[in-house]
Amino acid sequence: MDILPYLKEISKKTPSKILLVVLDGVGGLPREPGGPTELAAASTPNLDRLAQSSALGLYTPVFPGLAPGSGPGHLALFGYDPLKYQVGRGVLSALGLGIPLGPDDVAARGNFAAFDPEGRVLDRRAGRPSTEENRRVVARLREAIREIDGVAVEIHTESEHRFVVVLRGEGLGDAVSDTDPQVTGVPAKEAEAVGGDEPSRRTAAILNAFARQARQILADEPVINGVLLRGISKRPNFPALGEVASLTPAAIASYPMYRGVAELVGMHALDLDTSEDDPDRPRAKLEAIRSNWQAFDFFYLHFKKTDSKGEDGDFEGKVARIEMFDRLLPELLDLGPDVVAITGDHSTPAVLKAHSWHPVPLLIFGPHLRNDAARRFTEDEAQKGILGQLRGTELLPLLLAHAGKLQKFGA
Amino acid sequence: MDILPYLKEISKKTPSKILLVVLDGVGGLPREPGGPTELAAASTPNLDRLAQSSALGLYTPVFPGLAPGSGPGHLALFGYDPLKYQVGRGVLSALGLGIPLGPDDVAARGNFAAFDPEGRVLDRRAGRPSTEENRRVVARLREAIREIDGVAVEIHTESEHRFVVVLRGEGLGDAVSDTDPQVTGVPAKEAEAVGGDEPSRRTAAILNAFARQARQILADEPVINGVLLRGISKRPNFPALGEVASLTPAAIASYPMYRGVAELVGMHALDLDTSEDDPDRPRAKLEAIRSNWQAFDFFYLHFKKTDSKGEDGDFEGKVARIEMFDRLLPELLDLGPDVVAITGDHSTPAVLKAHSWHPVPLLIFGPHLRNDAARRFTEDEAQKGILGQLRGTELLPLLLAHAGKLQKFGA
Repeated sequence: MDILPYLKEISKKTPSKILLVVLDGVGGLPREPGGPTELAAASTPNLDRLAQSSALGLYTPVFPGLAPGSGPGHLALFGYDPLKYQVGRGVLSALGLGIPLGPDDVAARGNFAAFDPEGRVLDRRAGRPSTEENRRVVARLREAIREIDGVAVEIHTESEHRFVVVLRGEGLGDAVSDTDPQVTGVPAKEAEAVGGDEPSRRTAAILNAFARQARQILADEPVINGVLLRGISKRPNFPALGEVASLTPAAIASYPMYRGVAELVGMHALDLDTSEDDPDRPRAKLEAIRSNWQAFDFFYLHFKKTDSKGEDGDFEGKVARIEMFDRLLPELLDLGPDVVAITGDHSTPAVLKAHSWHPVPLLIFGPHLRNDAARRFTEDEAQKGILGQLRGTELLPLLLAHAGKLQKFGA
Repeated sequence: MDILPYLKEISKKTPSKILLVVLDGVGGLPREPGGPTELAAASTPNLDRLAQSSALGLYTPVFPGLAPGSGPGHLALFGYDPLKYQVGRGVLSALGLGIPLGPDDVAARGNFAAFDPEGRVLDRRAGRPSTEENRRVVARLREAIREIDGVAVEIHTESEHRFVVVLRGEGLGDAVSDTDPQVTGVPAKEAEAVGGDEPSRRTAAILNAFARQARQILADEPVINGVLLRGISKRPNFPALGEVASLTPAAIASYPMYRGVAELVGMHALDLDTSEDDPDRPRAKLEAIRSNWQAFDFFYLHFKKTDSKGEDGDFEGKVARIEMFDRLLPELLDLGPDVVAITGDHSTPAVLKAHSWHPVPLLIFGPHLRNDAARRFTEDEAQKGILGQLRGTELLPLLLAHAGKLQKFGA
């Protein structure tokens, strides 16, 4: 459900401030039936106190059963229907590496692959090389390929077999099909302009030339002797939150992916002091919010490590990251936000070591709350909350409403 | 919300098995305020035990307030948005009678009606004749009308005033309007090709000829002296569950309607031993699942009599059918399904003697469940369940997710 056109009609600028805290992948599962989840196992006196004066619920960012990637999960939190506002794989990979993309640039996700002498794909991931090996091959390609047909070609290591290629130039299109056949035993496909427009035809020709040149350059390599490309895409042109929700939003995130997705919806990603040891940089984030408090009215504050620990299957580590956030919470509240929301972009239960489809607990603190039976910010307690089960784009309008930023809908 | 295109992108084939039990019309209402519903009144020790290790919720197949027919209710359970994937009334009636329909065939729902000498409709249902009387009139028509314009014409008794006419031939269309004017005192309408395409024009002409001939043949009848036709339709061409959800699905149902709707989404309807006295054939169904356990990975198991007893207003009879299912449950669980869902396609409260719009209790048993406060499979307890309130197409993705059959959505 795309609610943005309706919000655009009724949102208004006010001085009230909204703080949206995203504890990445915070939702969890018990290790054994009846046991506590990561949130329930954590000692969180500050979150508990806040929960007792807040409204709680459970939030499904995309759709029941669907485990969201970081892109769709965050777009939902920002009010953008992730089934409608889709971001190409190439662009997401570039954002994740912090590679700036202009409106004319095209990004593609690449796999280093192994081909047989007849040019058929033997292994789509070339035996999953080390990231170091990836860097060595990327260096060879960079040395040999700098531009094709007047368009600058940039090649970046992602990890293992994955890389990103960015084309920078005028007159490029992204209605271009993948070269990755998704199966072995057949040759790579030719990239094709699926809509037949001239900019996409030119882009397809450049990427096909890139793939041919890579095969020639890597012909003497023992394993990685070619590339497969997919997710060929330009930075999408989404409406900005300033325009649709009358907000001046800031993003406080230390990982490039989240800064990038926030910038796609028009947030200003604040600079952070990078001297802090913890890669989540909690002190630097707090300091960045504090020193920019007057300049913005919507603060998206992201913490990554709850998800990372879940992905690692480290239940206790995830508990510790939740407790770390709990210790930071009083200083955040001292800033005096009018509305605070705390939730996640998806669940990442340590027992699954992966993003999951389970709803994420959601807490909203602010004025005009109804009474609420939930006593803690946990999955079980959130299920008792007055907010019930919310989906996709339903969160942003609630935050705007509690902050007094929405007019009546209709007369 | 049509979720199928998204599921198609992320579903994958795995060995895990899903059992979806549909207790038709199982949701109910108390006979007096505060009293038990049919489910709450039933003694269900096995369901109770299962509920205590499952996740529960309430499920609304179509939309709050809408009492689903069997077709829409089941399509929703299978993941097909019933507001989008519509089945014509003629086709549904044919499916209910177990009449096979090829892709070129056209089915229409017919009413035997009474007309005055000037050809105006006196009674759209001809005084609701007995089904036996219907059979006598159908025999007269069958005797006289076998084909029109080279197209085979089949006439089948449904019940009382209702019959089905099936046209079998090449080059037929179904963009054809009803002949039933829905009011009395006016003549029947002529069927018209609403889109103006040639196959639909031909079909309209054949059905108009059929209606004229029926009036001539039945001119000497005391009451039933004509027909009205509506819901002129071909078997819809829905995507198959195998294609969109990577499933190999089987249907275990004894009534033709449910076998037919399951076949519309590409399920294989298993043959059942018909010697069992009970028309719901519980033993035969169990045996059919058991002997086909290896060949399929999704089993839709349907029981009809909970609905029939509700339609009859027989509260105690419905309770008895719920208890019958409870006794069968341990043998179903012994098969070792990875994921089990138990629910209904709608509620049929005995006090209403009809399908109702009330949500149906839903139980999901399987891996990766959160803790749940619901202790029994009843309406009241399901309301406390961790699944909350689910709608329409939200069930299938959840079952696929718990069975490990969905990849992450987006990067």
